[in-house]
Amino acid sequence: MTKRIAILGASGYTGAELVRLIATHPEFRIVALTGERKAGQPMGAVFPFLRHLDLPDLCRIEEVDFAQVDLAFCALPHATSQAVIKDLPRDLKIVDLSADFRLRDPAAYAHWYGQPHAAPELQAEAVYGLTEFYRDDIRTARLVAGTGCNAATGQYILRPLIEAGCIDLDRIILDLKCGVSGAGRSLKENLLHAELSEGTQAYAVGGTHRHLGEFDQEFSAIAGRDVHIQFTPHLLPMNRGILATAWLDGDARRIHAVLKDRYCAESFLHVLPFGTTPSTHDVRGSNFVHIGVVGDRIPGRALVVGVLDNLCKGSSGQAVQNANLMLGLPETTGLMGAPVFP
Amino acid sequence: MTKRIAILGASGYTGAELVRLIATHPEFRIVALTGERKAGQPMGAVFPFLRHLDLPDLCRIEEVDFAQVDLAFCALPHATSQAVIKDLPRDLKIVDLSADFRLRDPAAYAHWYGQPHAAPELQAEAVYGLTEFYRDDIRTARLVAGTGCNAATGQYILRPLIEAGCIDLDRIILDLKCGVSGAGRSLKENLLHAELSEGTQAYAVGGTHRHLGEFDQEFSAIAGRDVHIQFTPHLLPMNRGILATAWLDGDARRIHAVLKDRYCAESFLHVLPFGTTPSTHDVRGSNFVHIGVVGDRIPGRALVVGVLDNLCKGSSGQAVQNANLMLGLPETTGLMGAPVFP
Amino acid sequence: MTKRIAILGASGYTGAELVRLIATHPEFRIVALTGERKAGQPMGAVFPFLRHLDLPDLCRIEEVDFAQVDLAFCALPHATSQAVIKDLPRDLKIVDLSADFRLRDPAAYAHWYGQPHAAPELQAEAVYGLTEFYRDDIRTARLVAGTGCNAATGQYILRPLIEAGCIDLDRIILDLKCGVSGAGRSLKENLLHAELSEGTQAYAVGGTHRHLGEFDQEFSAIAGRDVHIQFTPHLLPMNRGILATAWLDGDARRIHAVLKDRYCAESFLHVLPFGTTPSTHDVRGSNFVHIGVVGDRIPGRALVVGVLDNLCKGSSGQAVQNANLMLGLPETTGLMGAPVFP
Amino acid sequence: MTKRIAILGASGYTGAELVRLIATHPEFRIVALTGERKAGQPMGAVFPFLRHLDLPDLCRIEEVDFAQVDLAFCALPHATSQAVIKDLPRDLKIVDLSADFRLRDPAAYAHWYGQPHAAPELQAEAVYGLTEFYRDDIRTARLVAGTGCNAATGQYILRPLIEAGCIDLDRIILDLKCGVSGAGRSLKENLLHAELSEGTQAYAVGGTHRHLGEFDQEFSAIAGRDVHIQFTPHLLPMNRGILATAWLDGDARRIHAVLKDRYCAESFLHVLPFGTTPSTHDVRGSNFVHIGVVGDRIPGRALVVGVLDNLCKGSSGQAVQNANLMLGLPETTGLMGAPVFP
Repeated sequence: MTKRIAILGASGYTGAELVRLIATHPEFRIVALTGERKAGQPMGAVFPFLRHLDLPDLCRIEEVDFAQVDLAFCALPHATSQAVIKDLPRDLKIVDLSADFRLRDPAAYAHWYGQPHAAPELQAEAVYGLTEFYRDDIRTARLVAGTGCNAATGQYILRPLIEAGCIDLDRIILDLKCGVSGAGRSLKENLLHAELSEGTQAYAVGGTHRHLGEFDQEFSAIAGRDVHIQFTPHLLPMNRGILATAWLDGDARRIHAVLKDRYCAESFLHVLPFGTTPSTHDVRGSNFVHIGVVGDRIPGRALVVGVLDNLCKGSSGQAVQNANLMLGLPETTGLMGAPVFP
Repeated sequence: MTKRIAILGASGYTGAELVRLIATHPEFRIVALTGERKAGQPMGAVFPFLRHLDLPDLCRIEEVDFAQVDLAFCALPHATSQAVIKDLPRDLKIVDLSADFRLRDPAAYAHWYGQPHAAPELQAEAVYGLTEFYRDDIRTARLVAGTGCNAATGQYILRPLIEAGCIDLDRIILDLKCGVSGAGRSLKENLLHAELSEGTQAYAVGGTHRHLGEFDQEFSAIAGRDVHIQFTPHLLPMNRGILATAWLDGDARRIHAVLKDRYCAESFLHVLPFGTTPSTHDVRGSNFVHIGVVGDRIPGRALVVGVLDNLCKGSSGQAVQNANLMLGLPETTGLMGAPVFP
Repeated sequence: MTKRIAILGASGYTGAELVRLIATHPEFRIVALTGERKAGQPMGAVFPFLRHLDLPDLCRIEEVDFAQVDLAFCALPHATSQAVIKDLPRDLKIVDLSADFRLRDPAAYAHWYGQPHAAPELQAEAVYGLTEFYRDDIRTARLVAGTGCNAATGQYILRPLIEAGCIDLDRIILDLKCGVSGAGRSLKENLLHAELSEGTQAYAVGGTHRHLGEFDQEFSAIAGRDVHIQFTPHLLPMNRGILATAWLDGDARRIHAVLKDRYCAESFLHVLPFGTTPSTHDVRGSNFVHIGVVGDRIPGRALVVGVLDNLCKGSSGQAVQNANLMLGLPETTGLMGAPVFP
Repeated sequence: MTKRIAILGASGYTGAELVRLIATHPEFRIVALTGERKAGQPMGAVFPFLRHLDLPDLCRIEEVDFAQVDLAFCALPHATSQAVIKDLPRDLKIVDLSADFRLRDPAAYAHWYGQPHAAPELQAEAVYGLTEFYRDDIRTARLVAGTGCNAATGQYILRPLIEAGCIDLDRIILDLKCGVSGAGRSLKENLLHAELSEGTQAYAVGGTHRHLGEFDQEFSAIAGRDVHIQFTPHLLPMNRGILATAWLDGDARRIHAVLKDRYCAESFLHVLPFGTTPSTHDVRGSNFVHIGVVGDRIPGRALVVGVLDNLCKGSSGQAVQNANLMLGLPETTGLMGAPVFP
């Protein structure tokens, strides 16, 4: 039976990407779209690329009849999400795409987000949404917290290696390159085409990026000790895509074997032949992750490169994948679309 | 029953786009992929973005067992196509994506392509592949000739207007802006990122672009007299997308009404509200066409803007749409994917 | 003797371009930079690409000692400029880069800009800044009004042709393609990299773009009768550059000869050999204009393509060129830098 | 007295950039331009952006009268350069932009370039062209070897730190992001706009990039012991610019102080305030280098980010800077042009 879907916060990029994916999802039907500032407008006015679809107009959250909704995606801004979800029906299945429920520890949340959490009880209930590692919990979860897009990319590379104990935990460097859609539809000078195209720069330098909170939480839990990685993202003149370059101390062949073994049964995760690395072009617009491993000329040093599409596998695609699980559908339903190239 | 598909010339962009579309087509299965220079290679080596798919390796055309093929897409270079198709089994259904069978008149072909046609009997047999206007013929055709991507864009704007007699036939100007993938995977200096990005230029100026042959053939047939339009394309720093700006003598409201009326039942063609015009962003990666009409400040002059994705609706999407018809499937099968934005 | 220069409104793109050009101008020295919202900041904080220069900090206009200024460039927003200039010392030489003094007729100003002019007496005094056509007036002017960047491009193509009477004045179509920096440093969704790159669209459709006011004023004056052209600009995914495609009724050879003859002695204007057209790449970052002429396959129809850099020759370069004249310097001083390619 | 300049290999990007810079150089005059395959063509046909200049046509090297040349820039392909320079007059001053004379040790050359050197005696004579560190030798040199563009970027960051002994020499990671013009005007599929734009990938992974030969040579000489860094470049969808991210073990404040102190008197090198990092936008089209230093959240770990324009400071600008020295001119002559932004 077709599942009735609501998208709260449909006027941003992750909301639009959800609509794009659900447009050809055989089991989902969108019954409500909300957008506070754009309430009353048709979705095609806010995102003309969706004008061919038969969609409900944007409305306010309080106008949604949640009794007629099987699952709600919550694509609201960080900090807004917790206040809204707190007041939703207690039996509504929710996939949250914001940062609000990624960190389980209220103190960690307060540290990285600069304010106390408004719904700590939900924080405890939420399941971390990195599907391939929390699959069983997600299946039975009521509230799933989508991961950060950078955090997802880094974890796909590093989790199996930390678990296998095959890299030096005190020497993990993640140099990340990401497209601009990760910054959302924000009106900032540095996101203008005139200022972003044809150049690149680092940002959130010095270990200040919030996704470090997720890395710390997850990696320390796996390792059974504190793990603090070094991580700096760079903004690139492209719209979609994250490429993470991990500089590691460890045996490259062993690293490759661990990743290959761990992901061989996964539909969306592909480990390339040893010595080759992927491009973000290989996954643009899709739910796939490609990972490559190379040995450095210095023995015992390895390079691992992972790529995904930040809006899809890094956010909305992951969300649909989790929703599939929560609603008893095959995990890949509606998500096997090939990347778009060129 | 699943249809068995061969793609001849799968190592170019239109070949890759066919594979992308067929990857999620519920009724098609790829049984053969050919590429003369890359024969023996897996498709994932030629196009890494397809490496997640289970596909046959590239082979030579003579290695294909056409008895096991229901329909072949022929995505070979112009002029090569006619020689190859001539030697294929006479009962094989074929959708050709080259320019070889677009012009019905051998003299017109020789004029625009600079050489006599090698298979004039097939030229006569081929049905012109602009689906929405040749639908019935395509259903029963054995050989369908895909249109030029610029030619398709211009015809979606102009055919109904010429038919309705609502524009001056001696005053049709088509100023076209197109992305670079239309030039194919050709190694030319002006297609390098360093030379193409951040700038624009006209090309094939002065009425020399080969798609004028298609315009002349089709528009003259509709009008019952010679119609020669003015047409200049411009190369833009973007990969996908064509935007055609038609400068016309005619009543803008009437023009809008004619287009709206003609396309109201079409799945892929959308006419915007009067006074608004589309962006190529609205259709990127999809099989949709969006058209907008505006009146000029000078009475009796109108502007019509049409957009489509040259690789999809302008080429491989159109080809799949025609193949659906030829194989008795609903025309939209596998083609309702939403555009990718941003 | 070095000329002392003030730039009012230095925190926008045209202000920054003025600083870039003056940085290597041998006779100009910047003594004041204003920016109301950014007053107190060093220019290198507002535009890091200028951080190597020894410049005064941004200040408020009222802090400038105009007695120590030989010439002020006014790069303020439209409508702001007239109010500011009205209160500047009456003997200060001014080159205005806004739209405020381009139209001589108060009624035309009110029509195109939607409000009455605040300084009609200055409007009458201002000289139109299209250097190659107002050179003598500019030399002795106190206030020069920089032209619109689109308006400049169109006029370089059309003025000599209208003057020579070699084109049909009722059939002038200008299809213009422009880069995004012409929109300034405005925070608008459609100017974000994510929304602008990889696509194109028309804007100000239907004869509503304000630069039509300049075309009407100038062309009608030359022709001695009303001339109303058709003009639609398109926004392209590039930062700098305007390419104007003029679709004309006239003899292409004659058109070429008229332009060639008119511009043969001009330092910045180049007419290409007949049958060839320029790219915006040819002029990026420079003060040059390149123009090409082609005949259509339809006799008596011609295509003229002109390119310039909207920020330089279309705005700040033109302004420096005019300032050179006003200060008794050779017109090309500081402006012969070659374009930047790739 | 004006210096007479020849450019050998003027049909590539570094050749064109030399012409661009010399176009406004007050003391240089181009008397010969060579290009084997394009001999006989005007430079404006090969690079239309230079069509406004009065330049000699391209010719073959044997047609150049070197008696009338004060200095030759040699912008030929790698490996070609050594054979050509060997046969040039022994008293001709030469700045080579290829890789041929960067490595002093014939064995190192053979290792990194896969063939024995054709002119080992010249290899010994050549002075390494990193101006700020070889200034005195360059002044009196006859043959100067331009550095690799990536190699220059890394050295500007690392040389003072290695010399000061303030970083762990066994823990130097250089994650480099570079624009596509560094690959030259090569016709390769991955350099096409359609394949390069909107994505990124690593290349020359695993310690195989040839510029490592320069790093090894220079850093080991400074340190007085073998130094082998880890270095992987990434290709970005932009034309100009290199951003090098150095991940270092060392005290960030001390690193900042060392760099600040070392470069305080340099005209082209700017160290940003502690805690801030530059963008490639800040230097595009110019001869400047900007460097920023940040401390990581992990004590004792630092991030240093350096940027330059690969075609200018990384190649042709550096070459002009060295030529200035060799010809007794002030080092900055003709090189103070501001970057181009946006």
